Amino acid sequence: MKGRYEIRLSGSGGQGLVTAGIILAEAVGLHPDRFVCQSQSYGPEARGGASKSEVIVSHEEIDYPKAVKPDVLLAMNQSACDTYLFDLKPGGTVIVDATLVKQMPTTRAAAIPFTRIARTEIGREGVANIVALGALTAITKIVPLKSLEEAVLARVPAGTEEMNREALQAGIKAARKWMRASRSQTSPT
Amino acid sequence: MKGRYEIRLSGSGGQGLVTAGIILAEAVGLHPDRFVCQSQSYGPEARGGASKSEVIVSHEEIDYPKAVKPDVLLAMNQSACDTYLFDLKPGGTVIVDATLVKQMPTTRAAAIPFTRIARTEIGREGVANIVALGALTAITKIVPLKSLEEAVLARVPAGTEEMNREALQAGIKAARKWMRASRSQTSPT
Repeated sequence: MKGRYEIRLSGSGGQGLVTAGIILAEAVGLHPDRFVCQSQSYGPEARGGASKSEVIVSHEEIDYPKAVKPDVLLAMNQSACDTYLFDLKPGGTVIVDATLVKQMPTTRAAAIPFTRIARTEIGREGVANIVALGALTAITKIVPLKSLEEAVLARVPAGTEEMNREALQAGIKAARKWMRASRSQTSPT
Repeated sequence: MKGRYEIRLSGSGGQGLVTAGIILAEAVGLHPDRFVCQSQSYGPEARGGASKSEVIVSHEEIDYPKAVKPDVLLAMNQSACDTYLFDLKPGGTVIVDATLVKQMPTTRAAAIPFTRIARTEIGREGVANIVALGALTAITKIVPLKSLEEAVLARVPAGTEEMNREALQAGIKAARKWMRASRSQTSPT
């Protein structure tokens, strides 16, 4: 990881991206050698179809806690994808919810149907954020999956731990499947 | 309110200050003419006895989302009070949990026993953050109490709405009692 690593989680208001940002930041915060800042904006700048939550990770103290050129963009709907794609660092990682994003921004985007996985495998659409967090962490390796699980279980409402653990595992599994498929497509043989 | 208004919520890790910051930001975000940014830091800078969550409110877009000179400091324990008092804007508002802060930083601090109120009036210490949020909002008038209640009810776990509403009201009531006492002390008669 470079000196500063920026992650932007985007989508619509009800998709739990504030919670996802806090969980990710808390997972990184478990590691004593990292600085983490997590922020979100509300009000006029957050209106419309796209809202965002950001996590900045650094080996040094963080002076400016907003993303400037995100290394990773998670887009949970089409509007967020359209709005935030162009800030991305060249070569940055794009992860989209293929349930809701129909027009892929780039052929190398990780397109995984988080909302559909949450609905069909876990039985609850509301955990699509946790499915996405599992996938994002499996792909970016920003934090060990064990730390992420610990942070998820510490933050979700009592009684929903098992459901959220399953959501996380479903996201990790889907990401690994995508990574295998992606590698085989770009193989020279 | 001036162009930029900074609120710092401080205490220890388990006191729910991240949640309180998000609720306050979401309450302000309900108002279309305000910009709000909410952030917290984890990792080495957040270790030890004091952690913080910050909310910046402005009538203009917020470039720098961290507090520079807080207008309001909420300190939920002694360590947070000792650590963060000196950043406060001159004449800024100090609100402390009198259950845990024994050495008052200034005679004009609003000293209200949030943790004791949560424990004895609501029966659950964990809602001390919501009691404090009610008091902070009643004292600073940063947002209408109705908006705050709406934001609290939208964010707390399903099934805990009534308990949180009671916690909020208990905080508002305690703040009003403190404000009356404070006014009578400074009266010239």
